[in-house]
Amino acid sequence: MTKPLFDTLAIIGPGLIGSSIARAARAQGAVRTIVATARSPETRKRVVELGFADTVTETNAEAVEGADLVIACVPVGVCGGVAKEIGPHLKPGAIVSDVGSVKGSVVRDMGPHLPKTAHFVPAHPVAGTEHSGPDAGFAELFENRWCILTPPEGADQEAVEKLAAFWRLLGAKVEIMTPAHHDLVLAVTSHLPHLIAYTIVGTADELGSVTRSEVLKFSAGGFRDFTRIAASDPVMWRDVFLNNKEAVLEMLGRFNEDVSALTKAIRRGDGEALTEHFTRTRAIRRGVIEAGQDTDAPDFGRPHGHDD
Amino acid sequence: MTKPLFDTLAIIGPGLIGSSIARAARAQGAVRTIVATARSPETRKRVVELGFADTVTETNAEAVEGADLVIACVPVGVCGGVAKEIGPHLKPGAIVSDVGSVKGSVVRDMGPHLPKTAHFVPAHPVAGTEHSGPDAGFAELFENRWCILTPPEGADQEAVEKLAAFWRLLGAKVEIMTPAHHDLVLAVTSHLPHLIAYTIVGTADELGSVTRSEVLKFSAGGFRDFTRIAASDPVMWRDVFLNNKEAVLEMLGRFNEDVSALTKAIRRGDGEALTEHFTRTRAIRRGVIEAGQDTDAPDFGRPHGHDD
Repeated sequence: MTKPLFDTLAIIGPGLIGSSIARAARAQGAVRTIVATARSPETRKRVVELGFADTVTETNAEAVEGADLVIACVPVGVCGGVAKEIGPHLKPGAIVSDVGSVKGSVVRDMGPHLPKTAHFVPAHPVAGTEHSGPDAGFAELFENRWCILTPPEGADQEAVEKLAAFWRLLGAKVEIMTPAHHDLVLAVTSHLPHLIAYTIVGTADELGSVTRSEVLKFSAGGFRDFTRIAASDPVMWRDVFLNNKEAVLEMLGRFNEDVSALTKAIRRGDGEALTEHFTRTRAIRRGVIEAGQDTDAPDFGRPHGHDD
Repeated sequence: MTKPLFDTLAIIGPGLIGSSIARAARAQGAVRTIVATARSPETRKRVVELGFADTVTETNAEAVEGADLVIACVPVGVCGGVAKEIGPHLKPGAIVSDVGSVKGSVVRDMGPHLPKTAHFVPAHPVAGTEHSGPDAGFAELFENRWCILTPPEGADQEAVEKLAAFWRLLGAKVEIMTPAHHDLVLAVTSHLPHLIAYTIVGTADELGSVTRSEVLKFSAGGFRDFTRIAASDPVMWRDVFLNNKEAVLEMLGRFNEDVSALTKAIRRGDGEALTEHFTRTRAIRRGVIEAGQDTDAPDFGRPHGHDD
């Protein structure tokens, strides 16, 4: 077991990501003590039952008292409110981080509320599943995934290094970039795919000519993959789109142009353009596999046959 | 072991689907003898090596001589040509079927070339993976998936029932509908999702501001799911879009309207509209799971952690 990197870790919002951090941190011996807090009494009760935290507090302020590493694992829209609540209670030298899928708005909303004696290092582990809540987390969630740190200008290098070491201990690979670049990269690799999945699943549900029952029965033709993404946490994703509006709209614009081009190829019966496009995208799949970001097993290794 | 339903099965085009039929038919004892044929000498050689067929012929005409069930497992664009080649060589009473993802064009292209002494029952097993070729098939591919039969008006009921029994023996559930309705249902559950996945993967690859390496590294945020679908066989999918043009364009039109509505909600910061939409789509995911068409394991049960 490694020497703990931090004495006390406070998790604000132990949902899918927060509880996975707690589980992974404990599994790796990354911290000595884990404190967790959640807004709802039901969640706090469940966290006590699940036992991945040593202490469960009622308020954010209590949770961060004496903590060396504080990670806000809440929808990006409430990050500012959390920072305001915890700011006055942070221990000098504490590292404050988050896991938000948007970084520009988190820096803007949290930064002003945090004392100069704390080190603010925003982070985004690019990992997750379609499930949410404290039961959904697991210690292996971050293994071989990337965690992007977006330290503000003039951030304490030691704090950045220490947080990076923490994420590496949890199995992640660490990359550092500016909040603005992060928001552009994620707009295309995550936000646009989610928006499109949410759209298409809605479209399929509103057809008079095809019933919902038919859509569900014949979903193995491709649709079911979109339903997984469109099952992600609604509030988290609302906040992502509201807080990364510009980059998402920019990507949507480009996507719309590309939809138009392929639509035109179909309308004109331009088979050559279609084959050329489809062959190119097949190569990108190979790149994702080679980058270690997906499995090459058919259907992502979904069970086939009797185990279904 | 069941009594074989057919004496001889001929598979024209033993790729992912054709070779899975052969493997499943043998595993279930559904037929006595399996004949396979492929256009390319390399594929024929590989089929001999893999051993899922008893005989491998050089031509389609030879393959169907004496066959009781003939299944064309080729891109829908070449179904007509195949029918023309095999028509004069079919045994009286033979059942001729296919596995195409479009049914209207298959009926139009194959029907006229088949003799009245043969029974033409088009079919579409709604199953597959992103891999292609004879190595990609496996016997369990059709278990718990739907196979849609679209018999022409006046089709021989006994032939329809016999083909349905064959597919059930392979593990599939069978539904019967008209070719036109099939093409509408599949346009939304399969063709539109594929077109959108192909589009978005292309969009991500053409950004000056985000490198391909970044897209691949951070693809676990959602993008990687689209790359799986966009890795499907380019020629098969070209033919699908060219041959189900009207239904696909209709679904694309509806999808575009819905993209516009969500774009507007983002632009205006209408969080309520977004939450409402995202909550509704989450319910559809539950429907897909309940319909037995996907696994509820997180990330489709993709391996997590060290197995990645």
